[in-house]
Amino acid sequence: MRIPLDPNSRLPLFRQIETWFRSNIESGNLPVDTKLPSTRELADELGISRITVKNAYSNLESDGVVYTREGSGTYVAPLIPVMDGRVPRPPESWPLWQLEAAGESGPPLEFSWPFKTPDGTIAFIGVGDPREFPLQDFERTVREVFRRDGINALEYGGLHAGYFPLRGTIAHILSSQGIAASPDEVLVTAGSQQALALVCQTLLKPDDVVVVEKPTYNFALELFRSLKLKIVGIPVDPQGMQVELLEPVLQQYHPRLIYTMPVFQNPSGMCMSVPRRRLLLELADRYNVPILEDDFASDLRYEAKSLPAIKSLDPGGRVIYTGTFSKMLMPGLRIGYLLAEGPVFDRLVRQKWVQDLATSNLMQHVLNTYVTVGRYQAHLRRSTRLYRKRRDALQAAIRTHLPQDVFYAVPHGGLFLWLRLPQGMSSMDLLPLAMQAGVEFSPGTRYFPDPDEGKPFIRLNFATHTPVEINEGIRRLGEVMLKLMK
Amino acid sequence: MRIPLDPNSRLPLFRQIETWFRSNIESGNLPVDTKLPSTRELADELGISRITVKNAYSNLESDGVVYTREGSGTYVAPLIPVMDGRVPRPPESWPLWQLEAAGESGPPLEFSWPFKTPDGTIAFIGVGDPREFPLQDFERTVREVFRRDGINALEYGGLHAGYFPLRGTIAHILSSQGIAASPDEVLVTAGSQQALALVCQTLLKPDDVVVVEKPTYNFALELFRSLKLKIVGIPVDPQGMQVELLEPVLQQYHPRLIYTMPVFQNPSGMCMSVPRRRLLLELADRYNVPILEDDFASDLRYEAKSLPAIKSLDPGGRVIYTGTFSKMLMPGLRIGYLLAEGPVFDRLVRQKWVQDLATSNLMQHVLNTYVTVGRYQAHLRRSTRLYRKRRDALQAAIRTHLPQDVFYAVPHGGLFLWLRLPQGMSSMDLLPLAMQAGVEFSPGTRYFPDPDEGKPFIRLNFATHTPVEINEGIRRLGEVMLKLMK
Repeated sequence: MRIPLDPNSRLPLFRQIETWFRSNIESGNLPVDTKLPSTRELADELGISRITVKNAYSNLESDGVVYTREGSGTYVAPLIPVMDGRVPRPPESWPLWQLEAAGESGPPLEFSWPFKTPDGTIAFIGVGDPREFPLQDFERTVREVFRRDGINALEYGGLHAGYFPLRGTIAHILSSQGIAASPDEVLVTAGSQQALALVCQTLLKPDDVVVVEKPTYNFALELFRSLKLKIVGIPVDPQGMQVELLEPVLQQYHPRLIYTMPVFQNPSGMCMSVPRRRLLLELADRYNVPILEDDFASDLRYEAKSLPAIKSLDPGGRVIYTGTFSKMLMPGLRIGYLLAEGPVFDRLVRQKWVQDLATSNLMQHVLNTYVTVGRYQAHLRRSTRLYRKRRDALQAAIRTHLPQDVFYAVPHGGLFLWLRLPQGMSSMDLLPLAMQAGVEFSPGTRYFPDPDEGKPFIRLNFATHTPVEINEGIRRLGEVMLKLMK
Repeated sequence: MRIPLDPNSRLPLFRQIETWFRSNIESGNLPVDTKLPSTRELADELGISRITVKNAYSNLESDGVVYTREGSGTYVAPLIPVMDGRVPRPPESWPLWQLEAAGESGPPLEFSWPFKTPDGTIAFIGVGDPREFPLQDFERTVREVFRRDGINALEYGGLHAGYFPLRGTIAHILSSQGIAASPDEVLVTAGSQQALALVCQTLLKPDDVVVVEKPTYNFALELFRSLKLKIVGIPVDPQGMQVELLEPVLQQYHPRLIYTMPVFQNPSGMCMSVPRRRLLLELADRYNVPILEDDFASDLRYEAKSLPAIKSLDPGGRVIYTGTFSKMLMPGLRIGYLLAEGPVFDRLVRQKWVQDLATSNLMQHVLNTYVTVGRYQAHLRRSTRLYRKRRDALQAAIRTHLPQDVFYAVPHGGLFLWLRLPQGMSSMDLLPLAMQAGVEFSPGTRYFPDPDEGKPFIRLNFATHTPVEINEGIRRLGEVMLKLMK
């Protein structure tokens, strides 16, 4: 097989070999099941390193152009017609049930946002800063799990409510934060989003009413909408959800769930006062409504004292509590949990089971090995120091670069700053211009049951960027605001 | 800190150190936040290796008894009251909504099976044989992904429908099996169980009718029950679902979904004939019902020719197809997929999104790197050779050890053999006795909409055990059957 190689080409040798094989396979010169020379033979023949040939073969194999038979060699694979994207079809070619499904799709999800951003955009979105994640430590843990648990880590493993040792670790962390928890009451979930979904699927049906804070977590809203729940919002003030407004709502709408983030609320950053926590618990009990307490970031506290979780005030079985490792560690782990006691726990386990049988056992083993109480607390201290500085940098940048009449309350923890735009400005007008100018934020419209209520607001994540980046991003944002105000 | 060490004790030195600290911390001799000596100091003081001290400290830290502050040292952690299991409570202490939830829980899930098995039990349950999984290869792939993708593999990553390169790989594998697939029509799911759940949540509501084969996959039945669907079963014969019986059901019940496993059906092992596949597609089209084709093991074929997937006969948008890597690789990966075109695809993506945002990005990267077409096919060839031998061993063992009047058809692929018990014997009587005797199977009652119809049957998995183990397991089963017949 004489492959013409050009040592002076800008294309590396392995790419030249790869290209030669591709074109000869596609043209039919090398028919299906033709055996390729061994890497050693070809390297000798061409007078190059075996690694170079191996690189070429491995790229060809990754793309399915060739395949290997163990102990036998490398062969030309059958040509596979992979289609290029979906071809638009006339609607009448779809069955009726498909057209009905299309009719129900609702507004586009936010991930289908139509704007494009230039390279170097500073995006005040997302959760923590991935650059701060101790990747090498984590990888070491993965290796340790393979060594110690072997194939066990790849079986279904923790069926039922999850990998038991991890449930113990979670109970331990919760207990260290003052929330009495037994491993038997902990259900491991695919992120806290799944915890929310399981609670809704277990306790609510279409047209049931759910009470939320307004503003509230956007993906919770998306979930409630997709389950066709009726959503009633209670406004948030600097003391959190205005629980005093709740009783008439309970009387009028008979909600089946109250969803709350009492600490560093997403997106407002507010904390619910303790008297309101007690009142909420009392009202929920009197009107027989479960509370779903979403504690996504309460341990990211920069000042002020820690308040007791609603769950820790619960006399028993009134509150379902959910948390996640996505914010503190990495979102791609997709491990969250819920804590619930009483008869509902077994129903939640069952709901999880029928939804997806189990969450990745390997990830549960790795997380359990990685997250000891001490290590978690150390990572927390490090993140807290870092994110506090960034919050302060964001504040400083806002004072320097944004118009005087923006309004915000300084959040004492969490990841987000909630900002009211200058009088008359809409986040929906601002966003496309900002994205063109290389700065992105999350518009307030995402966080209200009625999106229009959110137009005057934007949410800024201050955790993912360095102070220098934050300053530059807000400078750009200020310029765009000024333009819009002219 | 003078810790008494006994070099002659059977307890290793690090355990002795660990135990000494534990008891002194629990007794309060070492109060919270006491700094422990550094590992170097303590090792010097005790005249032992520093590794020994490190081992002791690391065990204490794993259990949350001590914690470390970076660059500062190791300290006594707060004592954490982890509760021991859930204490039974009087029912009146639960809120009413909890009692309602309890009332709806339905029959216990099968994982809460009450029987215990002795050590050395041969269990004809599960999926493939984990001992055959190339763990080292897989671990090498994990390392490669960390090296190549770094922190990217731990971000949310493949939002929308999943990690795009993996969607391409799946489309490629499907295309190589004759199912035209574009990556744009592939949605990555948390196992095929989630694919089933997403389809139901998108297209059905409580009280809607779903048509299934009887017998059918037990966890699909559990899912349908939990969603409060009405389940109508069409019997299976050696040519698969008896599609000729379908039309009156379509007319009478107006089902919203037809769920089928046309190849090596679980549990019966039967394949649907091609004329029936065409008839099914035609009827589904005429009556406007989507088909959900569950292809969990079609490539595990031991003889007979491969039949076209119903999806490959679909003129467009009639069939939603689902598959998984759990059977061929390892179930703990929790990666499956569905293939759907038409307007329903975006609704399925949205449903996935609100359920759990995304599936573990790391696992998707690893799987995509691990599974090239060639490697997948090589693993398949190896598994097929192995499992065919085991199927034959099971047949031989049945002929040798079971009574003459059991009945089964030899499956030409897949993992399961479906066996009718001797006249008058119930799998529910047989199971507890079998488990006492150290052999386990899956009773037929799990696979029918009306469990009573399944009493005469058992499902035997032949893939997880060696021929010697299979023979011994069936020998035990034969003995128990004989006892029961006396």
